[in-house]
Amino acid sequence: MSFSQQHRIAISWHVRAGLLLVGLLCAALLGKTQTREAFRADHMDTVLYGVAYYPEYMPYDRLDQDVQLMQKAGITVVRIGEFSWGLWEPEDGKFEFAWMDRVVDKLHAAGIRIIMGTPTASIPAWLYKAHPEIVVTRIGGQYLYYGYRQNTDLSNPTYRFYCERVSRKILEHYKVNPAIIGYQIDNETSSAGAANHDVQVGFADYLKSKFKTTDTLNKVWGLNYWGQRLNDWTELPPRDGIINPGWKLEWERYSQWMTTDFLAWQASIVNEYKRPDQFVMHDFAGPPRPEVNEPEVVKSLDIVAANPYHGTQDQFDGEASSYVGDYVRSLKQTNYLITETNAEAIGWDSKEQFPPYDGQLRLDVYTHAASGANMVEYWHWHSIHYGQETYWKGVLGHDLTPGRAYDEVSRTAHELQRIGPQIVNIQHKNQVAILYSNDSYYGIEFMKFSDRVNYRTILRQMYSALYRSNVGVDFVFPESKNLSAYKVILVPSLYVASDAVLSKLVDYVKGGGNLVLAFKSGFCNEYSTVRW
Amino acid sequence: MSFSQQHRIAISWHVRAGLLLVGLLCAALLGKTQTREAFRADHMDTVLYGVAYYPEYMPYDRLDQDVQLMQKAGITVVRIGEFSWGLWEPEDGKFEFAWMDRVVDKLHAAGIRIIMGTPTASIPAWLYKAHPEIVVTRIGGQYLYYGYRQNTDLSNPTYRFYCERVSRKILEHYKVNPAIIGYQIDNETSSAGAANHDVQVGFADYLKSKFKTTDTLNKVWGLNYWGQRLNDWTELPPRDGIINPGWKLEWERYSQWMTTDFLAWQASIVNEYKRPDQFVMHDFAGPPRPEVNEPEVVKSLDIVAANPYHGTQDQFDGEASSYVGDYVRSLKQTNYLITETNAEAIGWDSKEQFPPYDGQLRLDVYTHAASGANMVEYWHWHSIHYGQETYWKGVLGHDLTPGRAYDEVSRTAHELQRIGPQIVNIQHKNQVAILYSNDSYYGIEFMKFSDRVNYRTILRQMYSALYRSNVGVDFVFPESKNLSAYKVILVPSLYVASDAVLSKLVDYVKGGGNLVLAFKSGFCNEYSTVRW
Amino acid sequence: MSFSQQHRIAISWHVRAGLLLVGLLCAALLGKTQTREAFRADHMDTVLYGVAYYPEYMPYDRLDQDVQLMQKAGITVVRIGEFSWGLWEPEDGKFEFAWMDRVVDKLHAAGIRIIMGTPTASIPAWLYKAHPEIVVTRIGGQYLYYGYRQNTDLSNPTYRFYCERVSRKILEHYKVNPAIIGYQIDNETSSAGAANHDVQVGFADYLKSKFKTTDTLNKVWGLNYWGQRLNDWTELPPRDGIINPGWKLEWERYSQWMTTDFLAWQASIVNEYKRPDQFVMHDFAGPPRPEVNEPEVVKSLDIVAANPYHGTQDQFDGEASSYVGDYVRSLKQTNYLITETNAEAIGWDSKEQFPPYDGQLRLDVYTHAASGANMVEYWHWHSIHYGQETYWKGVLGHDLTPGRAYDEVSRTAHELQRIGPQIVNIQHKNQVAILYSNDSYYGIEFMKFSDRVNYRTILRQMYSALYRSNVGVDFVFPESKNLSAYKVILVPSLYVASDAVLSKLVDYVKGGGNLVLAFKSGFCNEYSTVRW
Repeated sequence: MSFSQQHRIAISWHVRAGLLLVGLLCAALLGKTQTREAFRADHMDTVLYGVAYYPEYMPYDRLDQDVQLMQKAGITVVRIGEFSWGLWEPEDGKFEFAWMDRVVDKLHAAGIRIIMGTPTASIPAWLYKAHPEIVVTRIGGQYLYYGYRQNTDLSNPTYRFYCERVSRKILEHYKVNPAIIGYQIDNETSSAGAANHDVQVGFADYLKSKFKTTDTLNKVWGLNYWGQRLNDWTELPPRDGIINPGWKLEWERYSQWMTTDFLAWQASIVNEYKRPDQFVMHDFAGPPRPEVNEPEVVKSLDIVAANPYHGTQDQFDGEASSYVGDYVRSLKQTNYLITETNAEAIGWDSKEQFPPYDGQLRLDVYTHAASGANMVEYWHWHSIHYGQETYWKGVLGHDLTPGRAYDEVSRTAHELQRIGPQIVNIQHKNQVAILYSNDSYYGIEFMKFSDRVNYRTILRQMYSALYRSNVGVDFVFPESKNLSAYKVILVPSLYVASDAVLSKLVDYVKGGGNLVLAFKSGFCNEYSTVRW
Repeated sequence: MSFSQQHRIAISWHVRAGLLLVGLLCAALLGKTQTREAFRADHMDTVLYGVAYYPEYMPYDRLDQDVQLMQKAGITVVRIGEFSWGLWEPEDGKFEFAWMDRVVDKLHAAGIRIIMGTPTASIPAWLYKAHPEIVVTRIGGQYLYYGYRQNTDLSNPTYRFYCERVSRKILEHYKVNPAIIGYQIDNETSSAGAANHDVQVGFADYLKSKFKTTDTLNKVWGLNYWGQRLNDWTELPPRDGIINPGWKLEWERYSQWMTTDFLAWQASIVNEYKRPDQFVMHDFAGPPRPEVNEPEVVKSLDIVAANPYHGTQDQFDGEASSYVGDYVRSLKQTNYLITETNAEAIGWDSKEQFPPYDGQLRLDVYTHAASGANMVEYWHWHSIHYGQETYWKGVLGHDLTPGRAYDEVSRTAHELQRIGPQIVNIQHKNQVAILYSNDSYYGIEFMKFSDRVNYRTILRQMYSALYRSNVGVDFVFPESKNLSAYKVILVPSLYVASDAVLSKLVDYVKGGGNLVLAFKSGFCNEYSTVRW
Repeated sequence: MSFSQQHRIAISWHVRAGLLLVGLLCAALLGKTQTREAFRADHMDTVLYGVAYYPEYMPYDRLDQDVQLMQKAGITVVRIGEFSWGLWEPEDGKFEFAWMDRVVDKLHAAGIRIIMGTPTASIPAWLYKAHPEIVVTRIGGQYLYYGYRQNTDLSNPTYRFYCERVSRKILEHYKVNPAIIGYQIDNETSSAGAANHDVQVGFADYLKSKFKTTDTLNKVWGLNYWGQRLNDWTELPPRDGIINPGWKLEWERYSQWMTTDFLAWQASIVNEYKRPDQFVMHDFAGPPRPEVNEPEVVKSLDIVAANPYHGTQDQFDGEASSYVGDYVRSLKQTNYLITETNAEAIGWDSKEQFPPYDGQLRLDVYTHAASGANMVEYWHWHSIHYGQETYWKGVLGHDLTPGRAYDEVSRTAHELQRIGPQIVNIQHKNQVAILYSNDSYYGIEFMKFSDRVNYRTILRQMYSALYRSNVGVDFVFPESKNLSAYKVILVPSLYVASDAVLSKLVDYVKGGGNLVLAFKSGFCNEYSTVRW
């Protein structure tokens, strides 16, 4: 969906939202209670503990046995449904819920809370057959084909049409189900490098909307260089051959906007259905992730979630988990969820099969809780016997019987049942912050100063120094308004920054703040143009 | 040619075979002798010794001189014709034999036996001009163009049409020639990674034929994973984007089938013409070669041949030659041929120009003979002055005059004339075998446990240990029925194995056999699905 | 433009040349002086010293300030206009000169001489929009898109049409301007690996023209190998899949011819306009550059120029500059120009930001002058704030104010004003030469003998030995007629050489010359075919 189409569709949402209001009114008149408080991330009753659960992946039906094992272990939450579009809608327009109803019912009966996912991250084969054009074509022409997940053009209207329909059907079906505590939209979303025709058209629309005239572009990107100035928007060449750093940065911003917009749109659909006590969230893959503008995405979410995986055995050190935790907590400045983390050994091949030492699973849970996590879920309950993630092992191994990991999960779950209410909703009041600039990551990537060191290396060095010194740290962003809350702000190479951002830092220092600024900071303006 | 087309064509072969029977009957009535015994690989009269010979590659006519030099050296066999389609059929449908007749006549007059090759491994330029679609397109869209050899889609009906016609013409012309002792079909054949449209269609046919319903596929490949289940065969996506290990394994099996089928088809054509005293064979490139199912291919052949190249100078150690020899001998459990091995230095550039030390050529001959080879041929007689193999040197160097290699070949030839009849038809009665599983190679490749070590590494470690301990070894296969003939069977990581194969191994042990089983054995069933 | 089209167009040039003659006659009658001597590279009045200058790249107008700073520094020459087609012709057929007129006028007023470039090396966006087919498609299908420069198919008639029109407009406009001392055509031209359809057709035309029949090709390239012989020209396959070394060498020769032809054509256009006191030149990128046949290109030029960049700080050693200088001087056996060399740090990223030590800028100038350079120009005056060359720094840094580099340039300029007339037009009478064979570079590349060492490595080893022994050296070529002028000729691996060239070397030795011949010399004839 192009930038301008998006605005037109936004209007139709308003119409739909109006209809919804009428619906809600009717529902109230019919006696449905709407009195429970709206969901608050810092008002949870305990630290939830559980797994992603895919009974549909199993080679035989073992639902009863699974639920019994979960209940026995003390698991309190599962995430379901987020990768099963092909089961929700096995044929175009034919929806099936029975297969999931029995899962939801049995989990609910066992007292296990449920997070339901929209299944849009992996399209069914019938949809690919009908619409191969919705799959990503990358810069240079590489086409991703069918077989992978997260390989669709997020702005494609056909893809959006099918996403919307399946999501509404699921939401409609489960909205009254008391077992559902919240919804996850999509999964670890990014633009996947999409440069499809409609993405290129959307980028041109975005540029028009942002810069108005090509003369502005000529100026901010210095297009007199090599005589590449544009007379009008029809002359804008495809992104594929572009090497201008400002142009490339703007493309990355548009790619990020595609994700932001797609998730905001999905959240708006969920919001039409969800109850006040339910949340809508999205799980970020290993944030901070440059291709996703997490600070923008979270504006549409009730609560933030992340999927941090960590080294195990001697490589386990907690820093990686805290790093993600501090970052994710800072996005909405409150508690968050861990939707995925290692149960046993992980990997997309079998090279890294190092299951955690005894105690490391438990240690990881409290690491996350200490950073502000109000939930820890493993990916995943079972190990799968086929597919790319055969060796991304679950709480249960391939034999599907309780083993060492299950036992430690069980011990930890029971401990959490006791102390969870005391440690939930932890708040941090840190005096030190790190300023994170996604733009600076890309600005430096396009003009690398090293093959070994980049923006993230410097960021991580700063974080490590603080972590090893036991100094609590938040993240702030170029758009943040709360800088003065911190005694010290560390700034990794802020290569790309507008005058406004630089002024804000100057003001911070003038107001008594202590700023540690890495090299190459302030080098370029917001268009990745070197200052003169 | 697709799987189903193949079955239709098989019927037409029966018709053709009937006509042939009539023809043979007529020939018998006309007085042709058909009394010589059928060819037996273990009934040869001596160890044949010779070269591949391409007089057509020479910059000037030197046939007489070459034949004289061969005769003087004591060479007893040459292989000819297998790369010269463009000379056999210089224009579409115009066949020329005179250029080869004089070669055959002069070799025959000199008492040198001839193996004649079908020339299908390298298409003429006129055929490419008319039918560029017969050249391989690989997964992801890479098209191989013209210029290389072994770059055709083996299942393409157009390619098959031209292959059949040129082969029949050559066979028809030479079938009565007494100099021809046997035929080589194609050369070092593989599917070359073909994923052309007709290959993808053929793969779908193959799946239909093997699995009947997509529901079976959904089950054996676990297609509920990421919701990728198929409703019907029209939803089968192209192979290009697939990452499911079971799917990928089945594709490899189909790719192998393409080679098996192509060679069986070629052999069936040769069989219509060849005399009982002649053989049909194919030369495998450095077997075992995962992309070729050698145990299946040999079912169509009278005798097996291989092209092992080895290190020279200090890298010469005989193990590589024995490894290939033991493997190739085991394919039909009898003697075999070496159709190509190093004469002088080899390489597709000039980086590895290390000609053998004195005595290494002779040593290599007896290494092969000791493994059961009844023939050793060098690739090749001349060195060529142009083309990719300029530095893949022959018995004669670029100066085309006898040198050190010629002298050692001559000494060895004369020695073989003396002792050949004593050492030919060597039989091995080994008490140890290694079980080779092509499927396990691929199963592990798709879920690698190491970047350094793979199935072949483990296989080779086992072989090395036996070789260095001077223990004679055969190879057996998952389909082999003779396991009980061995006291010890070593099994490299048998990652992919059906229940039937595992039962066979259990039975072997129950019957007193000693089984050495490497790690990861029995992990997956025949669909590369982890057992539960 | 294809080879045969080129000949047709050559005829039309003769017609145009005739018209020009009439024009010149008229001009003479109208009183224009044509009495100044024709330009001679060895008759210059001083060593020119200056910069490439792109005021159009600056974020604000600072022309007056720049000219003042140049004048103050003592700069005597600038090169302008060669990358600004989009400014010369902002829309199809609409030409603008005012933006450049004020630059030319102010420089002239300041006594600074001007070299004007034709802007064909970087096409405008409107031209790409209308004619994306003029951009290079490489072997295998890679298309270069818009965004880069030097990415056009030099033989494409559409590209040629636009090149000719813009060049003629600029020449027409400036031909009477006394500030212009000469013209640069295009910039660092090469075929950029173009294998567009029209290039493949042109290559076929070239082969027909050179070899007449495909039978000749069959013979010189040994196309009986793998049966790839051609019956007629229609069977010639595309270059993409070719691995035959002789074929590949001939393709490289054709690629080189495309550059030679394009530059000869541009020079012929300039020659229609330029005054006798003006020169036409082209700047070679880091010669010798195998993809350009510099000895052929220079036949169309009055004077040769080169763009050598060198290591700085501890990596500065002068050998690289002398190497290029000796080579470029040898091309026309007289003085030459340095059009680009390091001012400050260089690089297409920011990894190599090592500005020269104090004194290295000056040292570099005299290094070039000592080799015979009559001009040294930096690339470039300003540092640019956007685009790929942001970190290819100028005499002025990004702050655009005089700094350390400016100061050293200024000191050197004033010194040159004093001693320039004494050191200009230096002539060398060397007794030693190195024979450079572009063909041998490619011949060896296609049959590499090493991954570390190639033709250039050996060439450079020979040059280094001479440089370090303080022996002055010229370069000669296979076509050179002056071998007897040298006491010693060193020949790096002359892998590809005709009988005529080998005879010439034999004659040289017979005549008393001393020849040092590296290994692999004389191996192949002129078609990269090994001698027999």
